[in-house]
Amino acid sequence: MKLYNYFRSSASFRVRIALELKGLAYEYLPVHLVKGEHKQPHYAAVSPSLLVPTLVTDSGEALGQSMAIIEYLDEVHPQPPLLPTDALGRARVRALAQLIACEIHPLNNLRVLKYLVKELKVEEEAKNGWYRHWVRTGLEAFERELAQLPPGTYCWGDTPTLADCCLVPQIFNGQRFNVDFSGLPRTMAAFDACMRHPAFQKAQPSSCPDNEG
Amino acid sequence: MKLYNYFRSSASFRVRIALELKGLAYEYLPVHLVKGEHKQPHYAAVSPSLLVPTLVTDSGEALGQSMAIIEYLDEVHPQPPLLPTDALGRARVRALAQLIACEIHPLNNLRVLKYLVKELKVEEEAKNGWYRHWVRTGLEAFERELAQLPPGTYCWGDTPTLADCCLVPQIFNGQRFNVDFSGLPRTMAAFDACMRHPAFQKAQPSSCPDNEG
Repeated sequence: MKLYNYFRSSASFRVRIALELKGLAYEYLPVHLVKGEHKQPHYAAVSPSLLVPTLVTDSGEALGQSMAIIEYLDEVHPQPPLLPTDALGRARVRALAQLIACEIHPLNNLRVLKYLVKELKVEEEAKNGWYRHWVRTGLEAFERELAQLPPGTYCWGDTPTLADCCLVPQIFNGQRFNVDFSGLPRTMAAFDACMRHPAFQKAQPSSCPDNEG
Repeated sequence: MKLYNYFRSSASFRVRIALELKGLAYEYLPVHLVKGEHKQPHYAAVSPSLLVPTLVTDSGEALGQSMAIIEYLDEVHPQPPLLPTDALGRARVRALAQLIACEIHPLNNLRVLKYLVKELKVEEEAKNGWYRHWVRTGLEAFERELAQLPPGTYCWGDTPTLADCCLVPQIFNGQRFNVDFSGLPRTMAAFDACMRHPAFQKAQPSSCPDNEG
């Protein structure tokens, strides 16, 4: 398998975690988002939507969208599972993942921050305020959802799931913008547990070949 | 089952379509987003993340996040299926759904537009420009992805899937803001096919009991 991705992309990071959790080897193909490499013709041929990550399977199928890729990996390489075995548990884990991937992250990615500055002429401080607002209010919602669930080491139970694959990159991302993580005990306990797990360590931006520090 | 939702919410509309496609009866419980009813304590007890829709199952479980709800419905009530039977097909359909639910819709929902106006003091015209920019560029990406797939009546094949559940509300939403839909032949053909299907007709905002026209 090959993974087109960028060390700092949260969506890329999610897939790297899943690959490491499953112990799947892959070729790392960097796509430099800040330099606009995702918009170049050679990448457009791989990803018509011009987004990272793209997983290319051994049979040459190019797959986009991080949560869809992770579910695919979970179906084709079921061990260890990244989703619970029951429909209700799967609904809970998918909802946690989507609470990050649909409610927080889309507001804070590079192209959105660029539009705020270039098109809407938003000042640096207001842009950072926007960033922190969505991460903070999103994580507060995430915490309230976690507080309703049975206690566990990770977001759901005692093994990492799709929800943890999404949570950890979001926390990394927030750390870069000095988001306040206080008052989020379940969320940060899950994050800390993940960061003690070697798969999450291996997948993190500082472990990537294109890492710029 | 009960569905807490709002006639104009795209995420609510997605779930209503899935319920209609499966022929599942449900109690319609309106939550008026513009009046802030989703932030009231009685709704916070149902949805700690204060988001619509919430599906409450017959056993009383409250489920959030529209794509997670639809996958749950598809697992518990498998006929007619809303996802393909093979892992690759499921990955394609989920990616199309997420291209809308993670890349377009989050930038255009009510709370984001409110933040632009109230906090960032963005003028009406620039706000509408923001809206149209993300819908248009997102749908262009969606069209390029569809163009790579085998031809079919709907987004994927000849029966509606999760991807169509997400596409149709996004087009409705874009119509309200006069988005340009030209040059999107596969996308709009799938939309038109959906709108000839009674399930999509029954689920649309104008068919809802809380519809304000």
